[in-house]
Amino acid sequence: MNKPVLGIIGGVGPLATACFMEALIRKTPARRDQDHMPMIVFNDPQIPDRTAHILDHSQPDPQPEMEKVARWLERAGADYVAIACNTAHYYYEGINSAVGIPVVNIMEETAKRLAANLGSGSVVGLLATEGTVASGVFQDCLERHGLKTLEPDTDEQREVTSLIYDGVKAGADYDPQQLMRLGEHLWERGCDAVIVGCTELSVIYQGLPDKPAWLYDSLDVLADRCVELYLHARTHGSLEV
Amino acid sequence: MNKPVLGIIGGVGPLATACFMEALIRKTPARRDQDHMPMIVFNDPQIPDRTAHILDHSQPDPQPEMEKVARWLERAGADYVAIACNTAHYYYEGINSAVGIPVVNIMEETAKRLAANLGSGSVVGLLATEGTVASGVFQDCLERHGLKTLEPDTDEQREVTSLIYDGVKAGADYDPQQLMRLGEHLWERGCDAVIVGCTELSVIYQGLPDKPAWLYDSLDVLADRCVELYLHARTHGSLEV
Repeated sequence: MNKPVLGIIGGVGPLATACFMEALIRKTPARRDQDHMPMIVFNDPQIPDRTAHILDHSQPDPQPEMEKVARWLERAGADYVAIACNTAHYYYEGINSAVGIPVVNIMEETAKRLAANLGSGSVVGLLATEGTVASGVFQDCLERHGLKTLEPDTDEQREVTSLIYDGVKAGADYDPQQLMRLGEHLWERGCDAVIVGCTELSVIYQGLPDKPAWLYDSLDVLADRCVELYLHARTHGSLEV
Repeated sequence: MNKPVLGIIGGVGPLATACFMEALIRKTPARRDQDHMPMIVFNDPQIPDRTAHILDHSQPDPQPEMEKVARWLERAGADYVAIACNTAHYYYEGINSAVGIPVVNIMEETAKRLAANLGSGSVVGLLATEGTVASGVFQDCLERHGLKTLEPDTDEQREVTSLIYDGVKAGADYDPQQLMRLGEHLWERGCDAVIVGCTELSVIYQGLPDKPAWLYDSLDVLADRCVELYLHARTHGSLEV
């Protein structure tokens, strides 16, 4: 087997997982099937909803199941792990501690890129689930990288939530331009960039015909980093996360 | 774990695998992440090129590696297996015999649907790899279902091959309308339907804005069947392939 093997905790959500795989494949410099990254994807629909648990801890806790999948991927031969779900990163420390292989952190990678591109003190808008926003983990991560966060107002957040849950996750129709409008509201309020900080929104973002430079897709950044690690390890023989 | 678990022999090719996952997810009647199909995908870039081996048996044989992945998926908990690659079905008997779980056959499912929709004696055009066309396995399968096959002429087949290998597999730019034109040529020569019989071509097909009713995508049919089996097993407790 080619090394390193990427393990993906999938199903959070399922469409975002397929979208992440496609991004990984399109970003890999490959001219034939055999040049691509080896991946093991476990699409596990039994992982409870992350936002439901963050907002109400009496709801089923997704952490044990995600840790189980991470350990399963490690046993199955994965050399590093990725989760195409921002909200799941509320549980990052637990998942990362459950395995002996590195788990690439989508928020950390996104914050690093924004800090490098925009510089310290910049303001970034955050389009994410209520769970991600309420938990504050993304905002804390951005702050550690010297960035300030601007959140949508209550009505806008309701629209974001509906786009994620009633649109993409429900397999229903939605207007892709709504993502653009929500981003533009934050942008007009003075953000230096806006983060597509929920991978269901990434599914919409990836399909947009025009992608403004101030819109940063977290799934895109995670895929870039995973491909970078793969290429590095293929050349140098070791992962450096 | 929800049952049944679908195992996917992936990487043949990688983009077709992601496209297949997306089709499965979009076709599953689900309103939330937790309603979706459990899947294990092994994206294995070490499976040698199928067409290269079919056309020249001195080239590396992909069958042992595909059998290995099938057995791996079975041990990992898969209840049934699918391969999003038509050409790989040249090796179907070996892969199917290597495991104790059913392997859904893309050619068989496509032929069944065409026979049901068009009736016996109908003529279907075949857009596929040189390996698939030269091996005759798809044509034999269609014939068992009472259907005649029309193949592209030499120049057209060269175009099909280039679209698959120099376009989709190489990650290069291509004109999606070229697939339509190749299909139309066969359609105009008197076919009752044309099969998108290579899953790299399915990647193009899935992105077409208008899909004529006479164009049948084998990946689409395979995804329909896998979802049907999942829903049946979820209700009745057993797979019936």
